[in-house]
Amino acid sequence: MVTLLDRIGLLVTNDPAHGGPLGEIRDAALLVDGDRIGWVGPAAKAPAADARVDCGGRTLLPGFVDSHAHLVFAGDRAAEFEARMSGRSYDAGGIASTVGATRSASEEELRARAGALVAEMRAGGTTTVEIKSGYGLTVRDEARSLRVAAALTEETTYLGAHVVPREYAGRRDEYVTLVAGEMLAACAPHARWVDVFCDRGAFDPEETREILTAGIGAGLGARLHAGQLAAGPGVRLGVELGAASVDHCTHLREEDVEALAGSDTVATLLPGAEFSTRSAYPDARRLLDAGACVALATDCNPGSSYTSSMSFCVALAVREMGMTPAEAVWAATAGGARALRRDDVGVLRAGARADLVVLDAPSYVHLAYRPGVPLVSRVWKDGRPVVGESVPAVDPR
Amino acid sequence: MVTLLDRIGLLVTNDPAHGGPLGEIRDAALLVDGDRIGWVGPAAKAPAADARVDCGGRTLLPGFVDSHAHLVFAGDRAAEFEARMSGRSYDAGGIASTVGATRSASEEELRARAGALVAEMRAGGTTTVEIKSGYGLTVRDEARSLRVAAALTEETTYLGAHVVPREYAGRRDEYVTLVAGEMLAACAPHARWVDVFCDRGAFDPEETREILTAGIGAGLGARLHAGQLAAGPGVRLGVELGAASVDHCTHLREEDVEALAGSDTVATLLPGAEFSTRSAYPDARRLLDAGACVALATDCNPGSSYTSSMSFCVALAVREMGMTPAEAVWAATAGGARALRRDDVGVLRAGARADLVVLDAPSYVHLAYRPGVPLVSRVWKDGRPVVGESVPAVDPR
Ligand SMILES: [Zn+2]
Ligand SMILES: [Zn+2]
Repeated sequence: MVTLLDRIGLLVTNDPAHGGPLGEIRDAALLVDGDRIGWVGPAAKAPAADARVDCGGRTLLPGFVDSHAHLVFAGDRAAEFEARMSGRSYDAGGIASTVGATRSASEEELRARAGALVAEMRAGGTTTVEIKSGYGLTVRDEARSLRVAAALTEETTYLGAHVVPREYAGRRDEYVTLVAGEMLAACAPHARWVDVFCDRGAFDPEETREILTAGIGAGLGARLHAGQLAAGPGVRLGVELGAASVDHCTHLREEDVEALAGSDTVATLLPGAEFSTRSAYPDARRLLDAGACVALATDCNPGSSYTSSMSFCVALAVREMGMTPAEAVWAATAGGARALRRDDVGVLRAGARADLVVLDAPSYVHLAYRPGVPLVSRVWKDGRPVVGESVPAVDPR
Repeated sequence: MVTLLDRIGLLVTNDPAHGGPLGEIRDAALLVDGDRIGWVGPAAKAPAADARVDCGGRTLLPGFVDSHAHLVFAGDRAAEFEARMSGRSYDAGGIASTVGATRSASEEELRARAGALVAEMRAGGTTTVEIKSGYGLTVRDEARSLRVAAALTEETTYLGAHVVPREYAGRRDEYVTLVAGEMLAACAPHARWVDVFCDRGAFDPEETREILTAGIGAGLGARLHAGQLAAGPGVRLGVELGAASVDHCTHLREEDVEALAGSDTVATLLPGAEFSTRSAYPDARRLLDAGACVALATDCNPGSSYTSSMSFCVALAVREMGMTPAEAVWAATAGGARALRRDDVGVLRAGARADLVVLDAPSYVHLAYRPGVPLVSRVWKDGRPVVGESVPAVDPR
């Protein structure tokens, strides 16, 4: 089945072959051939197809690639959020409360809740999402979280080193040994990536190195949380170990910026976290001007960033982080793909996955110009329509 | 036809009779009788009905009341927005470009575009919207804009005094005379309100007084734009003239806060404008602590705030303006109603309009806790389901 998406007012390809910051083509068409893109170009040169979809002059872009999300959990922390935003103190355990609820939940419940979030993301235009463990923190519960994640995405990340669980208080070296040993062995079969929360009050550089090195030895790719709460050695450690991405990068020293710019490691910025914790935003401009590769992701999680909306992150990046609309859209698509070392998503060219989003707008700029408005009107994932009208077989041409 | 909305996990009534900041009832039910609410209370005491809708434990609240929107226009200003956000200069006329496009458009086009925005707002949970003229600025074009607005809402506002049009450069006194005379006479039959943009570089206090006084004399209620760009006498002038609302209130002197707090004039805050112009936000906390009544609205317009989302405004108010989630939700519902001097919307009690929103969330806090996520899953306007599944006639009880 070959379907022509026609009358695309503005096509964002992210393919430098077409010029401009986003490889844009006006008055374009795109051919979907099975789960892949068969052809991209000006509408006037479109090849024949079995069916045709009229995009009505709208904007079409690659599906968003959300390279950082924590979707396997139970409970929510709305009361904690409300207290924080209202200036009241609140102590119901923070992340430990999510760990408790997650451990208590059935695998079926975890699957249903994570699946609902993935469906919500898809409705918002996200066609690739990375999903981390990190609320289980036992061998059984981390492996279970990763099984749940693996049923929903190829991009699964083992984050046993999210926090030292309460039962290991005073014995953190034992927990690190567990994470780098038995827990890793149980989780690696379900994971593509290994991640550590390396920050002030979290895992220190030696612990981080031990865990990431063990994960790499088990065949996983490395990625890292660093620079959310304070500047520190985490960013450079990630670069040294060849991490695909260092995530947050809110607090950076000049040598961190230089290390990122001189490497293949992506700086993934998570403005939803700063929004929801009322913190200062990362400086994307500084990273871009230095030559670093920047991605945007939601950090979707119940404690510090319970948004699933990549459009919202694009709008925040433009308002708060010095990114142009084009840079933010690139970071939310091609940037996310690079942070996951993927070349089959985040770009629209022949051979890439047919993961597509139609915006009900004449330009991608509207993602920032019309904040909060759900502009995503249709979504295809692997060539199948998953949001909006199903593909009608209009007269072939 | 009497329909029972049942299994409401959390019902926000805004009726002080039920206690709490939002008159909340847990495990509630609500009876829709024609276009009105027939009954509100605990589910256990629900009366019989012809049909029943299962709300599945979700949150139900009054439809949003957006008391400030500029929806009658043609063209967009995405390129201007992009240039502003990218630090580039851009001069294609600003508001004058929208005036030109609006004058050139057919009435049918204006009606279609404004109608599409009202539909978008309704999908986002807004069941009452005020619509201003102000991009016509001739007798014919202002009256035409108000006819378009009046076909979409009862809350129409004559804003001939939006800006002095180019053709009156150097003759602003003539334009004020026109606005307060012939243009008012042509517009008043289609309008409920009269509004003036009274700010630095806009209409001065004498001009504002002349126009508002003439409008009041023609039977219109007064409202005002003031304090967006600079503090000035506009806010107190609005209070003096008995305006229902003074809108923006970003720059206030202490005497402005006191005047608002000692009056029936609502302070309507428009955080979408500050978001989209990268300006400092108004201080809602200061107004609330002084005892002023605060509303939230979108200011939806193509130049400075092209959002239609009241949920987005609620999230910004909590993140940026010192409002608690409960205060922000009240301001977006009951506050908007007060800014329009309405007692039949923004509240859920017997006799009020059946304008209802179901959130796919266990609490209204999620409007801020889950920013950017379209949580509005069902909407009723005047008792009719307008968004989400149509009312199924489940077994009566
Ligand atoms: Zn994270
Ligand atoms: Zn306005």
